[in-house]
Amino acid sequence: MKKPGFKCHVFVCLNERPADHPRGCCKHRGSEEVFMVLKEGVKKAGLSDEEVRINRAGCMEHCEQGPSVVIYPEAVWYHVPTPEDAEEILREHVIGGKVVDRLRMEHIM
Amino acid sequence: MKKPGFKCHVFVCLNERPADHPRGCCKHRGSEEVFMVLKEGVKKAGLSDEEVRINRAGCMEHCEQGPSVVIYPEAVWYHVPTPEDAEEILREHVIGGKVVDRLRMEHIM
Repeated sequence: MKKPGFKCHVFVCLNERPADHPRGCCKHRGSEEVFMVLKEGVKKAGLSDEEVRINRAGCMEHCEQGPSVVIYPEAVWYHVPTPEDAEEILREHVIGGKVVDRLRMEHIM
Repeated sequence: MKKPGFKCHVFVCLNERPADHPRGCCKHRGSEEVFMVLKEGVKKAGLSDEEVRINRAGCMEHCEQGPSVVIYPEAVWYHVPTPEDAEEILREHVIGGKVVDRLRMEHIM
């Protein structure tokens, strides 16, 4: 029996709020581009569906620190402000298995 | 400094595909109702935002076993066919911390 799930399950918040909402939203902070960098990067790297899943997610309640990305099962939360940062997370964490300390959400909370 | 994240992070697939798609989709299998049972149940139980988050998710690639729910960080995957099953997962796992073995996805794969 195949075990369900993935070795690396990445959730990217793509929630969108009205432009004048006081909390803002990850979508307006650039999360769609972050999602695409991760999604296409995993495909290019040839990682299998059983290993890695880059997943769309609704609001994960860390809007002020967004764009928000969380990687499970290790539960590492990232603030990913630019596509270059998304590339670093792809290369170092998703492919390489090493946490990118400088982008951890703790550092800006 | 507050640590980001939740003790119990629940993702419910709400992906919708065209009605004639061969894989079907969690939305047409009833995932919106599953989501609402969990979301409202957590509120009613008075669980804090730091403890539990019921999250919308896009396709999690287990469509044939949907409606799909995964609970992290423990990475337990559930097949949740009815609102009553969602209530059981809420009561036993989300509130009580005990895995509901009979609804684990492994059992129908």
